[in-house]
Amino acid sequence: MTSFSFDLLHEDGRARRGRLHTRRGVVETPVFMPVGTQATVKAMYPETLKEIGAQIILANTYHLLLRPGHERVRALGGLHRFMNWDRPILTDSGGFQVFSLGELRKIDEQGVRFQSHLDGAAHVLTPESSIAIQEALGSDIIMAFDECIPYPATREYVAESTARSSRWAARCRQARQPEDGAALFGIVQGGMHRDLRAQSVADLLAIGFEGYAVGGLSVGESAELMYEVMDWTMPLLPRDCPRYVMGVGTPENLVEGVRRGVDMFDCVMPTRNARNGVLFTSFGKISIKQARFLDDESPIDPDCDCYVCRHYSRAYLRHLYQSNEILSSMLNTHHNLHYYQQLMARMRDAIESGTFETFRAEFLAARRIDP
Amino acid sequence: MTSFSFDLLHEDGRARRGRLHTRRGVVETPVFMPVGTQATVKAMYPETLKEIGAQIILANTYHLLLRPGHERVRALGGLHRFMNWDRPILTDSGGFQVFSLGELRKIDEQGVRFQSHLDGAAHVLTPESSIAIQEALGSDIIMAFDECIPYPATREYVAESTARSSRWAARCRQARQPEDGAALFGIVQGGMHRDLRAQSVADLLAIGFEGYAVGGLSVGESAELMYEVMDWTMPLLPRDCPRYVMGVGTPENLVEGVRRGVDMFDCVMPTRNARNGVLFTSFGKISIKQARFLDDESPIDPDCDCYVCRHYSRAYLRHLYQSNEILSSMLNTHHNLHYYQQLMARMRDAIESGTFETFRAEFLAARRIDP
Repeated sequence: MTSFSFDLLHEDGRARRGRLHTRRGVVETPVFMPVGTQATVKAMYPETLKEIGAQIILANTYHLLLRPGHERVRALGGLHRFMNWDRPILTDSGGFQVFSLGELRKIDEQGVRFQSHLDGAAHVLTPESSIAIQEALGSDIIMAFDECIPYPATREYVAESTARSSRWAARCRQARQPEDGAALFGIVQGGMHRDLRAQSVADLLAIGFEGYAVGGLSVGESAELMYEVMDWTMPLLPRDCPRYVMGVGTPENLVEGVRRGVDMFDCVMPTRNARNGVLFTSFGKISIKQARFLDDESPIDPDCDCYVCRHYSRAYLRHLYQSNEILSSMLNTHHNLHYYQQLMARMRDAIESGTFETFRAEFLAARRIDP
Repeated sequence: MTSFSFDLLHEDGRARRGRLHTRRGVVETPVFMPVGTQATVKAMYPETLKEIGAQIILANTYHLLLRPGHERVRALGGLHRFMNWDRPILTDSGGFQVFSLGELRKIDEQGVRFQSHLDGAAHVLTPESSIAIQEALGSDIIMAFDECIPYPATREYVAESTARSSRWAARCRQARQPEDGAALFGIVQGGMHRDLRAQSVADLLAIGFEGYAVGGLSVGESAELMYEVMDWTMPLLPRDCPRYVMGVGTPENLVEGVRRGVDMFDCVMPTRNARNGVLFTSFGKISIKQARFLDDESPIDPDCDCYVCRHYSRAYLRHLYQSNEILSSMLNTHHNLHYYQQLMARMRDAIESGTFETFRAEFLAARRIDP
């Protein structure tokens, strides 16, 4: 039996304040999960991740399957020990990267054949193998294997793919070894079609999962359409299960998602943007490479109390970026992830105190620079 | 008046245990100074540098002159504040990099004209401007401007260059603003010629400096020749002044240098090697990229108690290196600098207890792999 559970603690409108109980400890929701693709959240010591309040991270099954290999990770004591991270880990199913990175991929009812983007080696990923790989890694939250449908796509393709993802979801449920205490989440597909989203939810509910993700968002659609899909889907999901929107997003996306009842998010945006010199602040994004920061002795964000803002000037951070220094990625990532963690903490507080709409209005008003 | 002083605490053979008093605190010698070329010791938070025992770092005048510019650093509160490092900083004179990195360089009695390796802009570095730049940066130990003579070179060139470096050293002494409490070190040149080294020492002693460096080593000569130059030079230097061998070296070089009376070292080796996956251990160097580490769950060095060796396997470090992850440079640098700091601490202990020769014999015996 799984040791996973979810407590819904407060509601404020549709926004939810909850608590995940995993076999590796508690996660307060709404939560943002930093992405640790290759068994490291890029440019961060695990201890620094903890210092800024990261409760759970995401790791990518596709990447770890190819390198160093899930059986190797298992033999080395599992992903947590391998990467020195003792808090929960959610693994994706590999499906998204197979479609975005894999070469010569061929999809059929059984699964997906593809060639590694690293060395061209042939691989097959199926619902059963995806689950087995995630179990080998020692994941605490395992995601069902699905197809992340490209956008735009024909309605016919979306319907076919969504139905297949539902059949794959049932096979994932069958394949799970529930005695290890990890959770299994289903993933709602259905593209940008309300009825197909509803059908996908119905399929998944009939199978039964510990949590439900919404996939196929942040694939090029407008923010308005993304919010519309959330508006359609969230009310259909069980109130007592965690809801996770995958691969989302900007700070605004997180606020709008929480407002619509989302409990969990992940995205490469804070870490990838950091390495490109794009920094999040209470007043919007800044690009630290700009010449206007050459002599600027102020911190990234005067309202931020993170380690970086307490000790370093914009002028120094610009210098590090221009000089291609590793410390640039380290400090920028540190600040951006702190920003995301603080944003989630503030939303949790606002929901608890029943002031989420006030929080949202102030959050939006402060953003003088449009991101 | 300078607030700089040096206490010679113990001697064990020619090895010396001392203490530098700088305007930014005490440095126990013999000491290794990590190199922070562009106002950052690559891949290290300043706090992590302190954790592993770094007492003083070196910064490169040439690089900081070109980017972000010494006047900018001065306006931003000096190099210490700019880079969030409150312990002492030694700056080199810029001479070495002008000769190794500068383009179209032209040397005359006045100084060196060169073009920036970054943008081709024309610059002139003279004894006076080098001192002024180091003062603008806020250096605690300022190095005289000299020419680092290439190897091999004709005796005629070495003699001419060494005499000019002596004249430049006198101009540096004149140019110094001694009221700020920083120290000025002279640099012994003279190539691989015993009489020219002696002449250089005599020239510098006649001028008078707070400390004396030996330059022009680690430029391609054999280790035996390097040790021979140390053997010639160290006995000529004042017993009550610190002695610094610039740009050296391997762990063996440090042990042999301390054995010959050297108090201070700097080198990019631990940091640069780290980024190339080469790690220092009690039994010699290893290259973490090797396939033999794929499944190796042991730490880099079972005898090492550093953060990296306590938390990460060789298999993980190999994975990070192969995956081109930033954490690879972070962890490898952390370990290598810890190794260098521990090596110096052990030498300080051995000198204090009068067991340096025993330490050296054990150090050499443990190195099963020839570095």
